[in-house]
Amino acid sequence: MARKNSRTLWMEKLLRGDASGPVREAVPMGARTPYAGHVLGIDPSLRGTGLAVVALGGAEGPVLCASRTLRLRPALSMPECLGEIYKAVADYIEEWPVRHVALEQTIYVQNFQTAQILGAARGAAIAAAAVLRKPVFEYPPLRVKQAVVGFGRAGKEQVGGMIRQLLRLPEALPLDESDAAAVALCHAYTWRG
Amino acid sequence: MARKNSRTLWMEKLLRGDASGPVREAVPMGARTPYAGHVLGIDPSLRGTGLAVVALGGAEGPVLCASRTLRLRPALSMPECLGEIYKAVADYIEEWPVRHVALEQTIYVQNFQTAQILGAARGAAIAAAAVLRKPVFEYPPLRVKQAVVGFGRAGKEQVGGMIRQLLRLPEALPLDESDAAAVALCHAYTWRG
Repeated sequence: MARKNSRTLWMEKLLRGDASGPVREAVPMGARTPYAGHVLGIDPSLRGTGLAVVALGGAEGPVLCASRTLRLRPALSMPECLGEIYKAVADYIEEWPVRHVALEQTIYVQNFQTAQILGAARGAAIAAAAVLRKPVFEYPPLRVKQAVVGFGRAGKEQVGGMIRQLLRLPEALPLDESDAAAVALCHAYTWRG
Repeated sequence: MARKNSRTLWMEKLLRGDASGPVREAVPMGARTPYAGHVLGIDPSLRGTGLAVVALGGAEGPVLCASRTLRLRPALSMPECLGEIYKAVADYIEEWPVRHVALEQTIYVQNFQTAQILGAARGAAIAAAAVLRKPVFEYPPLRVKQAVVGFGRAGKEQVGGMIRQLLRLPEALPLDESDAAAVALCHAYTWRG
């Protein structure tokens, strides 16, 4: 296991809700009432949606309960993919006592077609949460990275490495799951209950 | 009731599947085996989704079974709207013996944000059809207008007037429902069973 640097340590403190004064000032969206319960983080895309359920509130810090990447092969049509995304989100919500659902906002996409398809994947995922009456929260990517790594311009691998440390995993998660876990942690950490 | 012009008459013939030779040539996607059964047409948008169920195959021509505009007030959040869109589509599919679902493709939208939101609304609607195992078909707007009015650059009101005539309605439908009925008829008419 890699040695923890100071950033990891204060992030863990923050996630447990016992961070000291200066850290709160440095990160103004620090939680006042720590989030307790399960968050489902989703990183939606048509053929590779990442899902992660993280539990918070225990003494041991955040716990990864489950994660998966919903890989959908090219033979599946777009509507079939959207149906699978809906069902995967609904399955996790039915399987785990999910309190809130969190997604990263899409800030920019190359072209209109991609924006439409990504929007449709998000729509299917969010609809599942809404139909099952779970509140949905969205965060800009910059804020997710800031909350998890400590600065907004962190690369995907840095996020992955930090998620692995925060969740005490033997190895890093696949990137889409790591991003899903990151937005789940971002939500828990920025939550003002 | 307005007098039927010749275009209406041949459209009705086409929809009944008994159009004569020359018309088939003029409209190459004319149906070979006429579509029989119910089509659910959807014109999705976040706060004003149009839905129309049209039945085909009867001697009297296409019949409008039901239509509605799902108006969602600004107080509802985006996730709540997506949940409502999903449920409205699922309700119609459960209420009517829908065989196929048809939507107009979105060709162009002003900006990325709008493309995302419209994509999400479409995604929620399509996910409902897919989860309930209904095949989904998409048509470019030009083709819908061509199928219903006879030329691709027809205005919304022209489509509305033609839908009213084809479905023998006492008055025109609200525009979103009329567009939903138009794509349903386009599907029925271009179907090669």
